[in-house]
Amino acid sequence: MALELYWGSGSPYSWRVMLALEHKRLPYQSHLLEFSKQEPKSPHMLKLNFRGQVPVLKDGDYVCFESLAILYYLDLKYPEPPIFGRSAEESGVIMRVICEFQAYVEPDLMKITRLVFSGSVAKELDAITRAMHTVGNEARTIEGRLSKSDWIVGESVSAADFVIFPSIQLLLRALRRSEAADLRSRFLPMRVNYPALARWISRMEALPGYERTYPPHWREQPASAAS
Amino acid sequence: MALELYWGSGSPYSWRVMLALEHKRLPYQSHLLEFSKQEPKSPHMLKLNFRGQVPVLKDGDYVCFESLAILYYLDLKYPEPPIFGRSAEESGVIMRVICEFQAYVEPDLMKITRLVFSGSVAKELDAITRAMHTVGNEARTIEGRLSKSDWIVGESVSAADFVIFPSIQLLLRALRRSEAADLRSRFLPMRVNYPALARWISRMEALPGYERTYPPHWREQPASAAS
Repeated sequence: MALELYWGSGSPYSWRVMLALEHKRLPYQSHLLEFSKQEPKSPHMLKLNFRGQVPVLKDGDYVCFESLAILYYLDLKYPEPPIFGRSAEESGVIMRVICEFQAYVEPDLMKITRLVFSGSVAKELDAITRAMHTVGNEARTIEGRLSKSDWIVGESVSAADFVIFPSIQLLLRALRRSEAADLRSRFLPMRVNYPALARWISRMEALPGYERTYPPHWREQPASAAS
Repeated sequence: MALELYWGSGSPYSWRVMLALEHKRLPYQSHLLEFSKQEPKSPHMLKLNFRGQVPVLKDGDYVCFESLAILYYLDLKYPEPPIFGRSAEESGVIMRVICEFQAYVEPDLMKITRLVFSGSVAKELDAITRAMHTVGNEARTIEGRLSKSDWIVGESVSAADFVIFPSIQLLLRALRRSEAADLRSRFLPMRVNYPALARWISRMEALPGYERTYPPHWREQPASAAS
């Protein structure tokens, strides 16, 4: 088996790559690393990625990291089915939407989840409220896209869906925590506030192989139910 | 003429695209927008990019924004000479290095330039010192790459060079300002502290068409000389 993936449970960056591997029906050897044991920073892993981060993909002797670069590599090396579109124009839109997500959503989204999971909501209420405002506005834009199409870009699932979905799931998990009770009304329940996004989440969850990509420790420790 | 570029003088994101257009010898109609007059947020421009940001590329009826997406689109639409490599493996490394730059260098680099140009160095000395530390370390990594090769990735100039170069030039311009006198010793003179980077900058400046990409207002208002 040529492909090997080093990943962490709950890492949205790892999840992106796993969704792409399932979509392309590429078998791979799975190496689940424990963040709590600092396994991504083991000497073996630092040789593969000196930053000590996951995901890392090995394809024979070739090593790639940074999730977007892995998606891009996989699409060039194993082109069918494509995840970056079938024309230059469609590819440009997919990459543009990914860049927008990374530039205008991800920093604030990750800030929210970090503050919730570290129990710092009360202490950082101003910062988290500002971040929620930005993420809420951007979610409205994505909601607009999904109210016109089943997928984020174009007529089929693409790298844009794979990049955005895990972060949305992480945000929802954070918002369902009791510490986030005062924050969640803007988003939850999703079927009321963001109905197209809610339907897209169901669609993503029905993709072949989805269950294999779901963070294992999320199954063992569900967030307290909220919606 | 099919291609049109809307850009701003001194915008590193615009500069990336101009370098790629010159490299591919693609003629384009140039629309220089004035930031001081809020031209990127004019009704006409908001129709092309609702975020009111540049660069924006028009190719006939097709519109693309976000600099990395434009580079990607251009490479698919006008493949020769390639800027994302000639093999999946090389492409993966180019994209990986771009992602690393965007994730680990750009936020702090842009913070430094923003604080210098807004005259906030003294007031934000702790924040700027931390940012300089990060950028200095990452510049050391890039210096390592360039001490082994003429270009950031592989044997020819690529999108990685086009993405990184304008931000480095912007940083150097900031560090040459008198407000940055106490900050610059870590970087300047480049030929002493980062000799491979300094040689690479000269190499980039010698690329065909480079002069046409140089920010026009930088010529008119040179930063005070420092190194």
